[in-house]
Amino acid sequence: MNIEQKIEELGYKLTTPPKPLASYVPVVKSGEFIFTAGQVPLVDGQLKYSGKVPLTISEEDAIKAAEICVLNCLSVIKAEIGQLDKIERIVKLTVFVNSTDDYSKQPAIANGASELLVKIFGDAGKHARSAVGVSSLPLNAPVEVEMIVKLKE
Amino acid sequence: MNIEQKIEELGYKLTTPPKPLASYVPVVKSGEFIFTAGQVPLVDGQLKYSGKVPLTISEEDAIKAAEICVLNCLSVIKAEIGQLDKIERIVKLTVFVNSTDDYSKQPAIANGASELLVKIFGDAGKHARSAVGVSSLPLNAPVEVEMIVKLKE
Amino acid sequence: MNIEQKIEELGYKLTTPPKPLASYVPVVKSGEFIFTAGQVPLVDGQLKYSGKVPLTISEEDAIKAAEICVLNCLSVIKAEIGQLDKIERIVKLTVFVNSTDDYSKQPAIANGASELLVKIFGDAGKHARSAVGVSSLPLNAPVEVEMIVKLKE
Repeated sequence: MNIEQKIEELGYKLTTPPKPLASYVPVVKSGEFIFTAGQVPLVDGQLKYSGKVPLTISEEDAIKAAEICVLNCLSVIKAEIGQLDKIERIVKLTVFVNSTDDYSKQPAIANGASELLVKIFGDAGKHARSAVGVSSLPLNAPVEVEMIVKLKE
Repeated sequence: MNIEQKIEELGYKLTTPPKPLASYVPVVKSGEFIFTAGQVPLVDGQLKYSGKVPLTISEEDAIKAAEICVLNCLSVIKAEIGQLDKIERIVKLTVFVNSTDDYSKQPAIANGASELLVKIFGDAGKHARSAVGVSSLPLNAPVEVEMIVKLKE
Repeated sequence: MNIEQKIEELGYKLTTPPKPLASYVPVVKSGEFIFTAGQVPLVDGQLKYSGKVPLTISEEDAIKAAEICVLNCLSVIKAEIGQLDKIERIVKLTVFVNSTDDYSKQPAIANGASELLVKIFGDAGKHARSAVGVSSLPLNAPVEVEMIVKLKE
């Protein structure tokens, strides 16, 4: 079973690779690394979730938004390299959570992203991560996720 | 025409490499990558733009500030490697925008940085990017930009 | 004198490697680089400092918190690679400071991290750095530090 099949077996679907919101590219392959642009929870060009945690979006929905961000990261990587089985390791995630200034459970939101990656990739999905609260995000997205990935040689 | 000439032809000027605001170095070359420190819009040691978007600085000025951040990134890279033609690819930008907590057009500000890089480097200037809104930045700068660059071998 | 001895001579102590706050790993070694997860000032599983600078924690204490974040980064790296002398260079720090929206002295707080690294590693400790103010951090930590390190070959 390859990674794309694993994603479907888990009940998820790779998104259509979102177009960048502006003048940049969704992913750069450089040496053995891939750097993704920050992904917000766009599905077919529409933001599926928006708001500031926990004021205008619930933690539950923000977790689902973080999952979509990961699927978007994977779909732009797949568009670049052809198949996700070429990934050796998910190296690093940065998860920006649009949150109120007294909110401190960013790790719970970011787990939406992290746990999905481990479900999909197993040990190769275990990554270093920073999760921080930010005052605002593009399009009023609740979460933005960027990823560094290492490819098999 | 080399990259430095291209910058001038576009009507821009490389800044004097800004000194770090504190105990760090402006750029580290490691393997084939260069990592810059986060650059704020300092020109000759003075912050050219300050404020929080859109409350105390306009979007137009914040875009100009983002351009200066890029010129500062390039000038510290040039100070390290001698000439900008050694750059193979602008790999990754992170753009932190000092913004109010209901502002959501960070991509428009970050485009000041991204579009200038593509004008200067062409395809080699197309990069992955994250843009986020933050509650405050050093010196009350409106924008801070950091860059990862890959060198030709 | 090795790096671990140097840390003790400076009057510091490597922390017990903190467990991740959630579903990720504290450090990933990939190629010649190590990426740490974002570290908050946990000591033996307890947050030693919390609050928002300068509202509910002083600059002095936030600087001490930044030092603990660095020690935590080093302790998770040591747990991965065995001894810190294998580090060739501290490449990049990102320092997120939990700050009010009119605070602009993040570099002073981040210097707690940067200066300790230079004391410990000398020239090899000189790194590129971004310091930004964020609206909130996990557990209401005042500072979160992540690190990219290059290993000797």
